[in-house]
Amino acid sequence: MSNPYHFQTVKHIVHGAGSLNLLPEKLALLDTPIKRIALITQPAIEALGVIEQVVAGLAAKDVEVLVVRDVEPEPTIGNVEAVFRDQIAPFAPQAILSIGGGSVLDAAKLFAVRLTNDQPLREWLGIDLIRNPGVPMILVPTTAGTGSEVTPNAIVTLPDEELKVGIVSRHLLPQIVILDASLTLGLPKAITAATGMDAFVHSLESYISTKANPISDMFAMESMRLIGANIVEAYEHGDSIKAREAMMLGSMYGGLALTAAGTAAVHALAYPLGGMFNITHGVANAMLLPHVMAFNLDAIVERLATVARALDLSGPADSADTAAQKLIDQIAAWTAAVDIPQDLRVFGVSEEHLDALAVAASKVKRLLANNPKALSLDDTKAIYRRLLP
Amino acid sequence: MSNPYHFQTVKHIVHGAGSLNLLPEKLALLDTPIKRIALITQPAIEALGVIEQVVAGLAAKDVEVLVVRDVEPEPTIGNVEAVFRDQIAPFAPQAILSIGGGSVLDAAKLFAVRLTNDQPLREWLGIDLIRNPGVPMILVPTTAGTGSEVTPNAIVTLPDEELKVGIVSRHLLPQIVILDASLTLGLPKAITAATGMDAFVHSLESYISTKANPISDMFAMESMRLIGANIVEAYEHGDSIKAREAMMLGSMYGGLALTAAGTAAVHALAYPLGGMFNITHGVANAMLLPHVMAFNLDAIVERLATVARALDLSGPADSADTAAQKLIDQIAAWTAAVDIPQDLRVFGVSEEHLDALAVAASKVKRLLANNPKALSLDDTKAIYRRLLP
Repeated sequence: MSNPYHFQTVKHIVHGAGSLNLLPEKLALLDTPIKRIALITQPAIEALGVIEQVVAGLAAKDVEVLVVRDVEPEPTIGNVEAVFRDQIAPFAPQAILSIGGGSVLDAAKLFAVRLTNDQPLREWLGIDLIRNPGVPMILVPTTAGTGSEVTPNAIVTLPDEELKVGIVSRHLLPQIVILDASLTLGLPKAITAATGMDAFVHSLESYISTKANPISDMFAMESMRLIGANIVEAYEHGDSIKAREAMMLGSMYGGLALTAAGTAAVHALAYPLGGMFNITHGVANAMLLPHVMAFNLDAIVERLATVARALDLSGPADSADTAAQKLIDQIAAWTAAVDIPQDLRVFGVSEEHLDALAVAASKVKRLLANNPKALSLDDTKAIYRRLLP
Repeated sequence: MSNPYHFQTVKHIVHGAGSLNLLPEKLALLDTPIKRIALITQPAIEALGVIEQVVAGLAAKDVEVLVVRDVEPEPTIGNVEAVFRDQIAPFAPQAILSIGGGSVLDAAKLFAVRLTNDQPLREWLGIDLIRNPGVPMILVPTTAGTGSEVTPNAIVTLPDEELKVGIVSRHLLPQIVILDASLTLGLPKAITAATGMDAFVHSLESYISTKANPISDMFAMESMRLIGANIVEAYEHGDSIKAREAMMLGSMYGGLALTAAGTAAVHALAYPLGGMFNITHGVANAMLLPHVMAFNLDAIVERLATVARALDLSGPADSADTAAQKLIDQIAAWTAAVDIPQDLRVFGVSEEHLDALAVAASKVKRLLANNPKALSLDDTKAIYRRLLP
């Protein structure tokens, strides 16, 4: 018997290579006619020629489009406010469309609710502090990925505090998600690696989270199957649409899983690596994943063994311990195969930083609460130390 | 590479025994404050004492409730119109809540859109003919089940034509679904059997449908795992909350799968058995399932083998043919275990009716188009004849 739990999804999900072409007709799924839309994107996507096509497709339906490309990577709260004030608010769009990576989608989600809530973003930091639903949103991710297209979260940076913080609200969920893997065919290898491993971390952390539930488990497991079977192929043969489609779906499932179950110690330990050493979120997560799972092992050996068997890494002859260890070894092997280093010295971290890192990680209490085992400061330092081989 | 496809879900799903108690607080998920709600239910549910508790819980939040219990089983279009005109319309509710079986939920969905569309139901028969979104809906199924709580479909009966017809519209999807398996603990055995097998049919037909897609496949497969592992337990030990919860989840997943992929020949052949011989929908589907799959076998042997392996009915040593046959045999075994007959004579069908049944089935072209193999009239008669042993 499970305790009651609440699962949030997005009502309309369109998937398939080329599905972005369906965008103009999918506008009809929104309950009000849309004649003015703001398209939040980024220069790298515009360079593909995609945005031009989308604007033309919408113009053919008499929809006026404002293209906005000034959201910074991992945007500060000031950047989001400035773009809203200078571009979005004067245009007064009836809907928000976003085609981009996780940072761009997160900013777009905030614009949609900012249009209907006259409050500075700072007042929303935390959970469920946005009062009114926003204008309708259509989100199109261009990495696989953050899963941002299906999460009720937006991450912003507070530059004064060297800190990234989350805004969580059901009003940040879009009405329509379009998953068109052809947009990811040209992704640089390093981004394919970091975002792909990040998506795997979302799913594995959701699966072993203390808040996991039967629905999040299903999405997490299928996500891990898809990513496990395709991440090396997507990395080595970036033009494989089959691998790219599987990664896109796996990433979206990871977002659904983490919305329900949350992430845990891997994310908690990754945040200070980002804040203090500018290590990309996905890279930090990928580096930490095998070591945090090795630490958690005795508490979750059956869960990890179940994943190992579902991913065909282990057969019925293996004990649970053996199966779980095979999963941990495979994660390390994937990380190596996609050229993510296993040495924090590459990023300037050394033994003397471990105290400060551990103290910073220990403050991410919301995520640590989801971890199946409590971490002392010494435990945390020991995990970081495994990345100083 | 998959062709683009569209997957529709419900935004908020609450699952767990006792989750109906959360209903008053979940009202806050709707974007407008609700002060008047119509509760569509049925006498058998009211007899459990559940409705009284729900009304009291809502009254504590200052919500006025009209309890409506006059929707008939498998309602006619006239019954739905009359209840709307006499009870729903004069009360003018701001939202619709329904706690009941598939027929009750289907009628409730129609009430929600009827409140915002001044059109007779007859004009909606078919696909996408409802213009405006309805008032918000919260659906609570009491069987596992039809999956109606997550489908955009409502089935009504046209008595003059002895015909059941579908109304399909995205406006028939609710805002919130509450899956509280404790409501199913007292279900009569025959209903547990028929609705449980019906849910399995939804998932297997979705999985082998020509319209199946990767997302519907995931839901269909997980649905079959849950139902396969629990249907006999739920039938024999109706008070097992664990089995009931698994059946409730499996049924909901079946609804999501069929919304995307549709059902096929089993449903097409079942409709005339309902229309001409009053055989319950779930019973007719369950009786037909092994025989339609045996007919389809050569076209879908790999798909059926994959299901057999996922359900642990078959090991790696079996050929695909052997594995597929084991699934078909197991379906027949489940049907027998839940006391669904394998002889149409029980319902008054004999050899002389087969021509008329086959002709009627051949008219259900929309579903037959989803079947992996075309059926001639002779094929159809041969399938029915296997149920006259």
